[in-house]
Amino acid sequence: MPSDEASEAAGGPCPGTDDPDVPPTSFGAADHGLLAPSWAGSAVAEATGDAAYLRALLDAEAALTRAQAALGLAPATAAATVTAVAAEHHRHDPRALAGRARAAGNPVVPLVADLTAAVAARDAEAADHVHRGATSQDILDTATMLVCARALDTVLADLDRTADTLHRTAAAHRDTPMVGRTLTQHAVPTTFGLKAAGWRSLVLDARDRLAAVRAALPVQLGGAAGTLAAFHAYAETDGAPGADDLGVRLLARYAAETGLAAPALPWHTLRTPVADLAGALALTAGALGKLAADVLVLSRTETGELAEGSGGGSSAMPHKANPVRATLIAGAARQVPALAAVLYGSLAAEDERPAGAWHAEWQPLREALRLVGGAARDAAGLTAGLRVRPSRMRENLAATGGLVVSERLVAALAALTGRAAARRTLDAAARRAADDGIPLYDALRTVLAADPATGAGAAALTGPRLRELLDPAGYSGSAGALVDRALRRVAEPSPHAPQEPV
Amino acid sequence: MPSDEASEAAGGPCPGTDDPDVPPTSFGAADHGLLAPSWAGSAVAEATGDAAYLRALLDAEAALTRAQAALGLAPATAAATVTAVAAEHHRHDPRALAGRARAAGNPVVPLVADLTAAVAARDAEAADHVHRGATSQDILDTATMLVCARALDTVLADLDRTADTLHRTAAAHRDTPMVGRTLTQHAVPTTFGLKAAGWRSLVLDARDRLAAVRAALPVQLGGAAGTLAAFHAYAETDGAPGADDLGVRLLARYAAETGLAAPALPWHTLRTPVADLAGALALTAGALGKLAADVLVLSRTETGELAEGSGGGSSAMPHKANPVRATLIAGAARQVPALAAVLYGSLAAEDERPAGAWHAEWQPLREALRLVGGAARDAAGLTAGLRVRPSRMRENLAATGGLVVSERLVAALAALTGRAAARRTLDAAARRAADDGIPLYDALRTVLAADPATGAGAAALTGPRLRELLDPAGYSGSAGALVDRALRRVAEPSPHAPQEPV
Amino acid sequence: MPSDEASEAAGGPCPGTDDPDVPPTSFGAADHGLLAPSWAGSAVAEATGDAAYLRALLDAEAALTRAQAALGLAPATAAATVTAVAAEHHRHDPRALAGRARAAGNPVVPLVADLTAAVAARDAEAADHVHRGATSQDILDTATMLVCARALDTVLADLDRTADTLHRTAAAHRDTPMVGRTLTQHAVPTTFGLKAAGWRSLVLDARDRLAAVRAALPVQLGGAAGTLAAFHAYAETDGAPGADDLGVRLLARYAAETGLAAPALPWHTLRTPVADLAGALALTAGALGKLAADVLVLSRTETGELAEGSGGGSSAMPHKANPVRATLIAGAARQVPALAAVLYGSLAAEDERPAGAWHAEWQPLREALRLVGGAARDAAGLTAGLRVRPSRMRENLAATGGLVVSERLVAALAALTGRAAARRTLDAAARRAADDGIPLYDALRTVLAADPATGAGAAALTGPRLRELLDPAGYSGSAGALVDRALRRVAEPSPHAPQEPV
Amino acid sequence: MPSDEASEAAGGPCPGTDDPDVPPTSFGAADHGLLAPSWAGSAVAEATGDAAYLRALLDAEAALTRAQAALGLAPATAAATVTAVAAEHHRHDPRALAGRARAAGNPVVPLVADLTAAVAARDAEAADHVHRGATSQDILDTATMLVCARALDTVLADLDRTADTLHRTAAAHRDTPMVGRTLTQHAVPTTFGLKAAGWRSLVLDARDRLAAVRAALPVQLGGAAGTLAAFHAYAETDGAPGADDLGVRLLARYAAETGLAAPALPWHTLRTPVADLAGALALTAGALGKLAADVLVLSRTETGELAEGSGGGSSAMPHKANPVRATLIAGAARQVPALAAVLYGSLAAEDERPAGAWHAEWQPLREALRLVGGAARDAAGLTAGLRVRPSRMRENLAATGGLVVSERLVAALAALTGRAAARRTLDAAARRAADDGIPLYDALRTVLAADPATGAGAAALTGPRLRELLDPAGYSGSAGALVDRALRRVAEPSPHAPQEPV
Repeated sequence: MPSDEASEAAGGPCPGTDDPDVPPTSFGAADHGLLAPSWAGSAVAEATGDAAYLRALLDAEAALTRAQAALGLAPATAAATVTAVAAEHHRHDPRALAGRARAAGNPVVPLVADLTAAVAARDAEAADHVHRGATSQDILDTATMLVCARALDTVLADLDRTADTLHRTAAAHRDTPMVGRTLTQHAVPTTFGLKAAGWRSLVLDARDRLAAVRAALPVQLGGAAGTLAAFHAYAETDGAPGADDLGVRLLARYAAETGLAAPALPWHTLRTPVADLAGALALTAGALGKLAADVLVLSRTETGELAEGSGGGSSAMPHKANPVRATLIAGAARQVPALAAVLYGSLAAEDERPAGAWHAEWQPLREALRLVGGAARDAAGLTAGLRVRPSRMRENLAATGGLVVSERLVAALAALTGRAAARRTLDAAARRAADDGIPLYDALRTVLAADPATGAGAAALTGPRLRELLDPAGYSGSAGALVDRALRRVAEPSPHAPQEPV
Repeated sequence: MPSDEASEAAGGPCPGTDDPDVPPTSFGAADHGLLAPSWAGSAVAEATGDAAYLRALLDAEAALTRAQAALGLAPATAAATVTAVAAEHHRHDPRALAGRARAAGNPVVPLVADLTAAVAARDAEAADHVHRGATSQDILDTATMLVCARALDTVLADLDRTADTLHRTAAAHRDTPMVGRTLTQHAVPTTFGLKAAGWRSLVLDARDRLAAVRAALPVQLGGAAGTLAAFHAYAETDGAPGADDLGVRLLARYAAETGLAAPALPWHTLRTPVADLAGALALTAGALGKLAADVLVLSRTETGELAEGSGGGSSAMPHKANPVRATLIAGAARQVPALAAVLYGSLAAEDERPAGAWHAEWQPLREALRLVGGAARDAAGLTAGLRVRPSRMRENLAATGGLVVSERLVAALAALTGRAAARRTLDAAARRAADDGIPLYDALRTVLAADPATGAGAAALTGPRLRELLDPAGYSGSAGALVDRALRRVAEPSPHAPQEPV
Repeated sequence: MPSDEASEAAGGPCPGTDDPDVPPTSFGAADHGLLAPSWAGSAVAEATGDAAYLRALLDAEAALTRAQAALGLAPATAAATVTAVAAEHHRHDPRALAGRARAAGNPVVPLVADLTAAVAARDAEAADHVHRGATSQDILDTATMLVCARALDTVLADLDRTADTLHRTAAAHRDTPMVGRTLTQHAVPTTFGLKAAGWRSLVLDARDRLAAVRAALPVQLGGAAGTLAAFHAYAETDGAPGADDLGVRLLARYAAETGLAAPALPWHTLRTPVADLAGALALTAGALGKLAADVLVLSRTETGELAEGSGGGSSAMPHKANPVRATLIAGAARQVPALAAVLYGSLAAEDERPAGAWHAEWQPLREALRLVGGAARDAAGLTAGLRVRPSRMRENLAATGGLVVSERLVAALAALTGRAAARRTLDAAARRAADDGIPLYDALRTVLAADPATGAGAAALTGPRLRELLDPAGYSGSAGALVDRALRRVAEPSPHAPQEPV
Repeated sequence: MPSDEASEAAGGPCPGTDDPDVPPTSFGAADHGLLAPSWAGSAVAEATGDAAYLRALLDAEAALTRAQAALGLAPATAAATVTAVAAEHHRHDPRALAGRARAAGNPVVPLVADLTAAVAARDAEAADHVHRGATSQDILDTATMLVCARALDTVLADLDRTADTLHRTAAAHRDTPMVGRTLTQHAVPTTFGLKAAGWRSLVLDARDRLAAVRAALPVQLGGAAGTLAAFHAYAETDGAPGADDLGVRLLARYAAETGLAAPALPWHTLRTPVADLAGALALTAGALGKLAADVLVLSRTETGELAEGSGGGSSAMPHKANPVRATLIAGAARQVPALAAVLYGSLAAEDERPAGAWHAEWQPLREALRLVGGAARDAAGLTAGLRVRPSRMRENLAATGGLVVSERLVAALAALTGRAAARRTLDAAARRAADDGIPLYDALRTVLAADPATGAGAAALTGPRLRELLDPAGYSGSAGALVDRALRRVAEPSPHAPQEPV
């Protein structure tokens, strides 16, 4: 028997009545991702759509009846019937449920009514065991965790693919020199291998955090106010009074039935699981957003060191190769932190169920999952098809005529002529190189020749040695060692969801 | 001829190809508002769904061809044909378009391809004039403004209804005394009329800002990089070279065809219109959120001064009357500020079209519109059905035994006995009232009687005068005058969209 | 006499007592902007520091006593004394007040105690008229509005300077060709004048919105729960009972004394003024953030079209010229939207004074003011010193060998050879240009020569005509006309604050 | 020798020059927490003030020279001298540094100049080893981690105190009945022990996450672009060329000198450490925000089940006992999520150092630390002094006249009379109780007596049994067992920072 506290609102306004603000014909507005190329058509979109939520809600109901049956709180036949009927999720229309959800403020209330009726049509007694003892939030939270589990498995797979690709990329370009840039300006050389290894380390950071969160996703069960009292009441009146820990055991069994973790306490207003999701999703979006930010600046027409593998041709502007995937990832990375902020904000929830904070979680969590899922898909595709252009990297390294290694030249000169003279020499050479439009090599030789004292001190700086010092490829410091070290990192073994509570 | 720069990506990955990260069968995830009872089934949901956007995109295309025809840049027959074909919006499948949008990163590119083909089937020459000279963003931004215009008209109507209801409520309860509460504690009396007048003033603030934003919603037109150069090129090759201001005139005409305002400049990366929307929507959500916050605290079982008009009965918990609408509004108010932050963040957009900032606007703007639209609908329903309980207000006013007017008593006593003695007297009386569980009236009489000096000074404080001073209804200050004044305010006349640029 | 409701908490924990969680020696942590180069040392920082708030709080108290005196609710001598003592703001130590503010949760309570004592030392009767009838929030809100008024005047001046500079820049570069870039790629030509005119239009948008908000900043006055009842009580006991509209008149007079606007209602929990500030500040940060975003991408070493006027030299990396101001503006633009979201969130405030929502406004509003103030200062400096390099713009325009005008070529060819042939020709030429590393001009001539049919059709495309079509400077469309039009816009005349309520 | 890339901007605008937008006299705006009673005077405020950052910056410089000396890259005497001079942090004026920080955009550049000069005054050679090979971000990031470590230690201690107090509270009130409330309405009974145990579990969640983040706080070292190349260059020219892994070893040694963890890679734009901080701080703010939200609703005058231990008396409103600490915590909880969103947003940082994303972290991270530090202090004080009123809890439980256990009555009746009759009976009784203002017990007896059939079925429901069923204290389900189980949880052992990299 549904004992949901929310059901009392069933007499309230519902579509089809004369309530003036619910026009009966207005339920035709479905979304298919038209404004979300980032995640449209992705596996995560599929896993988080209304149909997927509906299925998860029904799964949560069925698992609850089964868990009760396992503890002797319901007949085994009831569990079987409820499970069978709940499996027919296509008989429920999400659009109609969405409208009916308004009366109680959540979709569980009308869904329970429909499920109960469907079960009753087969087995009147079984109908008594639909949703028995539970509250709407038990089911909606559990369903949400099921949806998250399914969605995150997809995200994790895409992150793994991305990390694997980046491993290969970083290894292949371990020693490919490129300009290191700070505050938009050429600074000193680095390697593309180090950049790719950095991207990979972020992807692994994201993966490890998401995997830990996914393994800990808890089932929800507490009844009307988190004490599981109704289960005790039914046990008592059924002549099978439970011990004090009946609720604790039921929680564990419910976890086992759903494959989720068993929480220490009902968490209707102890929202750590949602907050942990928020943080891991925001970190993932940002980690992929860093990759996208780099691809975008390095793909700029003037820079041209990277290009997305796709990029077709246009007769109107055949030179354009828009970094579409990086753009979509960047767009997602701009949205997820704000959605995470809403979720973190919902931690501050009053009472045993809050009036607003809980409701404010649903869509932001779903949208964050989708954006991250879409970004992970795009990152996997982007990295797999990324075109790297070492020749453009070399050209750009040379763009400042050798100044990009001036840090190294100052160090070398200082050892020979003293620090003050070294700086003077380099400043003069840099100025001359700029004024005369000549390479720094020539300018340095000229400046040293013109200053007999310093020139003598710098005698060890022969032409070949100077050429060597000016070679950006030779000034990559620990880049190779850092790449090697970073690539030794593997993803942390995924923790498994505890099947029994502590 | 579509000259959209994005179309060059048409050769890129698209569903159905062998691209490994786009499973061809995954486009089944439609949303119907199952997780959004706040706006499910609302007129705004209808006005902002994928179908509505699709229609607006087609409207934007048709209006563009008409505008060109009006300036002699396209044959009138082409404009008629494009308009007729574009009106058949049901021939386009938003789900399929969403998938194909991934290649170029926006839905306009595949839609233009389809529209062009459909027009070509009727009139080959007209097909040349579909999307001619425009860029995807011209169409998507214009369509978004059309959607916003339609959605805001609905929101404004609901706000008007709400303000009207609150006008009546405030007038009816102009002098209904209730406790004023600060930091959760009873402070001094106020009136329910003043509270309702305050709600109304916020609703009018929101209404006025939204109406101003709505009237200024601009059309978008700039071509590939905001110079409208392609229109000049086509005019020239068509043998009708335009003057320097061809683009400016076309912009004006396009505005007239769409009913939107003409912007001073193409605004692809000058996003004031979107930021203004963000601000007005966040303010509206917050204004309604204030109303909801008050309804929620005043509906608490212990307080019981207000109740939502709905509220059915439950056999399990027949005493509950959940304030569902206030809850949904409160949930919406928690989300919109974060969405607005994303929109404000997108102002900082590089170049002539940014890689991410623009894409990050689409869904947050839509969701903000929906949440505000749903909240406005709920506010209209909530205020229309609100049950006000003056008797509970009176009971609560009496709950502190008269202490709620202690501010007034101190003032009165101070005038008779001096400030220090007045405070001493009231402190002693308050303590005695609390200790002995007696009304403040009795405690004060006792304390004054026990202190001959002060008592003599306070001799003017006869029993009747004291009773008068202790009447909370007599201590409402300027509440009535403030209500009168606030209710004289009317909504600002809506500005009209300029049909011609300055 | 201070009748502030908050003062009852005076017996609560305060520093120096044995409260275990307030270490008595811990008040040494002052901030001077070390982590905020964006606004350190700015006029806005000065206008919003603790000392400035302290002064504004004292100004608010003095104005309140004067307003009461003007209405006969206090002796003129009291008003004069309070005003004189309040002017000595340096006698108050913000550090000590900050610590003492913890007991009641706001700094007004201890400040009123100190001010009352200081006034009493000169005139015992005047002390009775310090803060009489007011609540802490009346004073803190009014002081905040005073601080905002002073800070915004500075911001507006910097925005005016920036807009003036950009007017000159746009006019000077009205016809300077540069590449228009979309999604990081070269698209079609534009002009630097159009870009600068766009920046200016955003600055004016920000300016107009801030000016409107500034003019409407309201005084706050409502007493303990917004009814102004205490003022009635004192008037009555002073033998001068006011009419019903005493509070309304006092509000108007208080506005006049402070130079702020008179609100229609006390706005303790009707926070439109703060929300309007939030929106205008977020828009301003974003408007300047757009300017910064463009400067940053155009300053990249490979692009080099712009450089900040500063930029010194380093001996280690003499080639670097960091765009420091653009960086600081960009950093500010990333922060303000989130702060605005907090402020919008505080609209949903329960009761007559909320427990948290109000307190959550103080620092975010101050930090948003500072970030915007710093960004406006930096924008004024940045635009004044901006180095524009038309030669680099020309070089970059040529970087794609003519492809940047392919949109135009297709139009021209299509008129001669039909659309399909035109596209074929351009595709072939683009491919050949890329493959052979030759200019598009040569590639086109070769392709046309190799295709007799099309070549004949395109005969009108002589060498000189082709050169003309390939000149990016000739393909700027309406850019010039748009610049002219945008530069005709002037800042809206600032509205003046109403001195009398409606 | 400082080889910081940022130093090239030293020739740029700095205070005291004639730069028009930096008034030389405007550095007088210090903050002392006047607007932040939440954290004013706290240990975290002290640990995060400008002086604390200054000290940490100097510590970071000294540790870097020591680390180089340990690897033979600097003389031991230089390390000793730099350490000694750096320890004199009071010789640096944060205000002046803040102003000079504007030229390069960060405070490290001027600080290095001052430190170098101060070291040179004692030992010219040692001055060459100040900041040698490092970049500003190495120092600022390391200093920030040091500040975070010190601040978090304080926060963790306050959370431990809070959890301990709540353990005692939950144990003491394990069986104290109170109303469970959902959506503002009385639902079914719960216990205050379960509520307090839930608070504690959130505090432990926050503690465990913060402790893990704190243990992993990494040192930063990468040089100009993250390759540590300058260290190689100096080693080479000093005649002690390092192996490829010189940088990796230096990173490890630097970690050891600072007590921070050694990162796998330099993390200038791999910002997982900052994102992890953001998440843990947001979760902590929300966890404490939940506690505050409950205290606020339960302290409302009408409810009165809890009161803050402080709460003094006011002569004007002696009945008020503002929950000041809960208010301040609630205010903090509204701000931190938005600050965390800014930090998450900064993950998407382009290049080897971004232009804005890094700068946008500094103040939000500091403010988030402070708000969380203040909230933890307040939570410790609040829970230590919390006044619990079981008698008010009992009164409120009785407020619905027994309806609060109607869930249980339906279960009991259904077992006797069937489900449909049970519901009918309870509905009728509830209506009668409400209409006649009588207890549910009496109403039920009357209803059953009036319906012979049902009455007979329910004969087992004798008066005593009915009284038992109506006792809310007997309907707490698994609350006790859940409390016991939750209190067995202990804080996770803090991980220790690795002193050597993997």
